[in-house]
Amino acid sequence: MIKPQTLKGFRDFLPEEARKRQYVINILKKVFESYGFEPLETPALEYEEILIGKYGDEGDKLMYRFVDKGGRKVVMRYDQTVPLARVVAQYQNELPMPFKRYQIQNVWRADNTQKGRFREFLQCDIDIVGSESILSDLDILSCVKTALSKLNFKDFTILVNSRKIFEQVEANPKIISILDKEDKIGKDEVLLLLSEAMESDDKAKNFYSALKNISPTDRLNQMLKKSEELNLFFSPFLARGLDYYTDLIFEVKIPKYKGGSVCGGGRYDNLIGMFANKKIPAVGCAFGFDRLIEAMDELNLFPQNIVASSTKVLVTIFKPELLNKSIEITLLLRRNRVSTEFYLDESAKMEKQLKYADKKGIPYVVIIGQDEASKNLVILRNMRTRKQVAIKPEDILKKI
Amino acid sequence: MIKPQTLKGFRDFLPEEARKRQYVINILKKVFESYGFEPLETPALEYEEILIGKYGDEGDKLMYRFVDKGGRKVVMRYDQTVPLARVVAQYQNELPMPFKRYQIQNVWRADNTQKGRFREFLQCDIDIVGSESILSDLDILSCVKTALSKLNFKDFTILVNSRKIFEQVEANPKIISILDKEDKIGKDEVLLLLSEAMESDDKAKNFYSALKNISPTDRLNQMLKKSEELNLFFSPFLARGLDYYTDLIFEVKIPKYKGGSVCGGGRYDNLIGMFANKKIPAVGCAFGFDRLIEAMDELNLFPQNIVASSTKVLVTIFKPELLNKSIEITLLLRRNRVSTEFYLDESAKMEKQLKYADKKGIPYVVIIGQDEASKNLVILRNMRTRKQVAIKPEDILKKI
Repeated sequence: MIKPQTLKGFRDFLPEEARKRQYVINILKKVFESYGFEPLETPALEYEEILIGKYGDEGDKLMYRFVDKGGRKVVMRYDQTVPLARVVAQYQNELPMPFKRYQIQNVWRADNTQKGRFREFLQCDIDIVGSESILSDLDILSCVKTALSKLNFKDFTILVNSRKIFEQVEANPKIISILDKEDKIGKDEVLLLLSEAMESDDKAKNFYSALKNISPTDRLNQMLKKSEELNLFFSPFLARGLDYYTDLIFEVKIPKYKGGSVCGGGRYDNLIGMFANKKIPAVGCAFGFDRLIEAMDELNLFPQNIVASSTKVLVTIFKPELLNKSIEITLLLRRNRVSTEFYLDESAKMEKQLKYADKKGIPYVVIIGQDEASKNLVILRNMRTRKQVAIKPEDILKKI
Repeated sequence: MIKPQTLKGFRDFLPEEARKRQYVINILKKVFESYGFEPLETPALEYEEILIGKYGDEGDKLMYRFVDKGGRKVVMRYDQTVPLARVVAQYQNELPMPFKRYQIQNVWRADNTQKGRFREFLQCDIDIVGSESILSDLDILSCVKTALSKLNFKDFTILVNSRKIFEQVEANPKIISILDKEDKIGKDEVLLLLSEAMESDDKAKNFYSALKNISPTDRLNQMLKKSEELNLFFSPFLARGLDYYTDLIFEVKIPKYKGGSVCGGGRYDNLIGMFANKKIPAVGCAFGFDRLIEAMDELNLFPQNIVASSTKVLVTIFKPELLNKSIEITLLLRRNRVSTEFYLDESAKMEKQLKYADKKGIPYVVIIGQDEASKNLVILRNMRTRKQVAIKPEDILKKI
């Protein structure tokens, strides 16, 4: 016998969870589109040569790679940025420039699994390709702020920094990776790691305080001035792991949520042009979808009505002879755009039918017994309060 | 240099195409949910033993199979029915029964590519698991009819038949596969093939006319009577390829579209229980997503406004010194829920900015020159008529 199970790091989304995800995706899409970002989809499989070597050694190790039946070396989508670079090169003449696109698709990484880290997960990216202007950076940040507000987050901070700051203080990648941890491990621990890396306590202290008191770059200063309503917060320790950023970097923190930043991005002017053989500036960000869902769960930001089934009314079948009455009411409700199910077994006991409504979280049930049928009435039962009333069919619409 | 290209049978969806797809998906979801179908998502990869042998030899050959880094034999999602069977077994106690679910995800098949046949394509399935009642069959058919109506198809036919008809006339799988072609190759060709298969012209003729004049089964008759408004059309030659159907089978034809049926399904009572080790009846169908899109394109059923960008207004930048004016108008429009972009380069020529609007299909452009700025006016340009007027900023809302 075959055990019904999923692979480690891969998830089924049953209706309740799937509805939550859909709710978040719909809001994000709406906001992205209101800013003029347009949808893009790319294939789950790409030629290996397109993806290989683009994410460092670590990335190459974590890819799902195989040889297909035609002998082609293929890789499953690892992120949405390298495919974007391919698309920009492949359709150069068709795309408007600057190209503002959003992309919401799964990616696959054979990483070690742990709480919050999966091998199949959804990425939500927005990027602007082909503009160097700080207006693009601000457009991304403004869109991020609007998206989080529309998801009902009240309290969040957008931390910004520039990779150029690290050039000023001559921080190498190792130092940057230490700074990146400040948020999690705190000042003392960072000082310790810096001392080790710089082989001197004094150097480390001086470096730390120099960085702490450093002024934003000119470009960052301009951005901060032009965007007072965005409430950006300059944080010279913000580093972000990915080494392809060239200037602005940013992250969104939600103080009440401890699972890490829910969105991060920056400017990366040397990546998108790789297949087009020219420099194409770009700025963008990715929402951490699983974290968003987790944060919204913890902070109770999902509206009640999306957790339950979208069915508003279950029309039960009192007995097989009264089936036509039930169908009649169902059609009446559907004509009036009420999401309505009728129970799918004409000989099931009423108790079973009511349990079904409970299990799906359907708020109202209609029952038509012999008595009601003869008087052209229906019983409308509120499944939350367990109260029921006998009313005319057309009055259901007023009561629900 | 690496050539930017996609694998054969795999597609990028650029914004215009992606928007069309999204439009269809949104309508289907809305209709499915109004009937009480709930969303389900399953992983792109499954253990090989879950999928292997479930689709016949042909299926096993077409699967994307490989061994992952942990030495697990895995297969990419090949359809959504076998994963549904796994889900039903794995979460038996959590799911409401009957379980009505919809699933809209990509599947992968290493099939020969041809017009309309791809290696990565979207499946849209609705199924009802755990009910034997003809009410379930009718629920599926009614949902299909509503979905097609909401997609604006006016003229379509739902052909129904029952696999039991083939038992009555003792048609073996080979015969069934011939009947399945009647639609495409016509009566004469079918008779020829039948003669060969039955090794007798007379037998073939008798068989053909017996089938042509056969009455629907009792169950089918009941369905036809209970569903006059569905306009079902009994077609004893309708066979459908998949051999797991046990009773009802159906297909939807659109007379003006020659690409084949856009939806098909039926009852399959012996499949869903395979991992649960018991019989679990089921009925459902799949929409041919690519065909739907193609048919809607041909019949001009996509609304104009979804083909273009969702951006309603592009606010241009006349010169860098007037940037703040442009930002001001952008914020005003966004506050009033108008999807608004501002051009992302403050030093671009006006001509370039107007071209951008044209390329994205943005219907209105706002221009604020020195003159307008001093009089607190803006120029609103209609990109279709090329006419423009100078108006107060707050009057934009009335004009668009």
